[in-house]
Amino acid sequence: MPLLVVGSVALDSVETPTQTRENVLGGSASYFAYAASFFTPVRLVSVVGGDWPAEYTELFRSRQIDTSGLVVLPGSKTFRWTGKYLANMNDRETLDVQLNAFAEFDPVLPEEYTRCQFLFLANGLPSVQMRVLEQCPGATLRVADTMDLYINNTRDDLVDLLQRIDGLVLNDSEARLLTGDDNLVRAGHAVRAMGPRFVVIKKGEHGAMFFSRHETYVMPAYPTADVVDPTGAGDSFAGGMMGYLAEQGNFEPKTLKKAMAYGTLAASFTVEAFSLDRLREIERADIDRRMEEYQRMLSF
Amino acid sequence: MPLLVVGSVALDSVETPTQTRENVLGGSASYFAYAASFFTPVRLVSVVGGDWPAEYTELFRSRQIDTSGLVVLPGSKTFRWTGKYLANMNDRETLDVQLNAFAEFDPVLPEEYTRCQFLFLANGLPSVQMRVLEQCPGATLRVADTMDLYINNTRDDLVDLLQRIDGLVLNDSEARLLTGDDNLVRAGHAVRAMGPRFVVIKKGEHGAMFFSRHETYVMPAYPTADVVDPTGAGDSFAGGMMGYLAEQGNFEPKTLKKAMAYGTLAASFTVEAFSLDRLREIERADIDRRMEEYQRMLSF
Repeated sequence: MPLLVVGSVALDSVETPTQTRENVLGGSASYFAYAASFFTPVRLVSVVGGDWPAEYTELFRSRQIDTSGLVVLPGSKTFRWTGKYLANMNDRETLDVQLNAFAEFDPVLPEEYTRCQFLFLANGLPSVQMRVLEQCPGATLRVADTMDLYINNTRDDLVDLLQRIDGLVLNDSEARLLTGDDNLVRAGHAVRAMGPRFVVIKKGEHGAMFFSRHETYVMPAYPTADVVDPTGAGDSFAGGMMGYLAEQGNFEPKTLKKAMAYGTLAASFTVEAFSLDRLREIERADIDRRMEEYQRMLSF
Repeated sequence: MPLLVVGSVALDSVETPTQTRENVLGGSASYFAYAASFFTPVRLVSVVGGDWPAEYTELFRSRQIDTSGLVVLPGSKTFRWTGKYLANMNDRETLDVQLNAFAEFDPVLPEEYTRCQFLFLANGLPSVQMRVLEQCPGATLRVADTMDLYINNTRDDLVDLLQRIDGLVLNDSEARLLTGDDNLVRAGHAVRAMGPRFVVIKKGEHGAMFFSRHETYVMPAYPTADVVDPTGAGDSFAGGMMGYLAEQGNFEPKTLKKAMAYGTLAASFTVEAFSLDRLREIERADIDRRMEEYQRMLSF
């Protein structure tokens, strides 16, 4: 089943303790779409500027990613993010953000897209996420991501949004910020009580937690000795998760749990190189091989 | 098979964001021994002062914990630790330490104890841990714990010890400190390269990692909404792990993995109350019930 993602496509400059990369393909919707494309056809809605390298559009198209919703504004520039990772490779500092074309992002979906059953609202203004939601009245699974900026600055809009979606994906510090509770198990259920049927808390190198009315569980991250660049891990997680759900065409508890595992593994590949470089090297079979290892790891 | 533990028995005063307890039963060997006693007979070697409440010795004896190695020095006082947990319940501050009787701890094992096959050296001076090791030349499984104090102050002794033991259990910040590597997967293998056949890195609320020559795996903590007091979680982990190994009488890879899970669950009960209070309420069957839940949680 096709999967619709709406969010940012960017050019990132990333500094790690040992290496740097400039103006490489980034943005939450890019990571999400690429990771999801191992599982299902993806429809990508975003906006870029005149500086957008056409090769990246080609890259998306070479996968099963439909880019007819990727708007190019020739008079503008593409969203740019510059960040630096600390020695632990888990904490990072944002050095510079230039929203550029993304500042005006107010997507009007192609008519065909509005009938998508599986929808992911990548990080963005909750009011924009809400307007996308309104264009897809028939979606059966609506999942959103959010971040500290929106929790702090547009909390009311976010609270409205939470009552309109089926699932929310956010990281551990964001869950603590949103709920004021340091215990992640309580925080997860507190977010769920704000509206969504399920909540996923991403914990970076420590894995991810799942919360629904009847279930609470944790999955560890796949143990990776060689973390080159964590950028996009959380978006790849969401892409792997939603991609698998759309492939299966349902979001029953059993499917959701396997989807959490696929999300974990998609993220584990992403961090092994800069940008989408590692995902570009692998095939679905590589993810499935790692799934077998991961399942073996958790069997006793 | 009986399990020998050598380490501290203490009276703890603990402050959490919502509650405090004064002079309650604590110490790494106490938590270890109690958690292990769900699985196997335990022999406890430690030292306390004249202020030691006899009821705690009775408590140990009411379990299958042999206290003939628990020396009471009437002219001295029991080891006291005072600590305070921060709001996140994962970080803590030590407010006061009075080693008292434990400062002179240089155990001479009862003759019968020296034939124990399964030995755990709880936190203590590596030189003391080494002298215990020398009294048990026939032990088949020798596992130790250590901490930042000994990594910083007695590194050479610790390095010697690592070449004489089969397993080391330490927490994530200690693994980073010992190896200088922030990546826990690399750090785990680097510690293993210093001598022990296997290494366990405890990550508190994020679970534990296992490293041997042929295996690397992670287990998440059991998700607990109600963390009352994390004191002793790591020692309970080690007690559950070693207790199960001694019960099974082997430390083959499959047994070790199940032992890691039992350690995880022993810790999950400990944090649900102060001191040993929660462990005192439960039976082996409660741990096994949680094991079923935990296995179900990790199946997909």
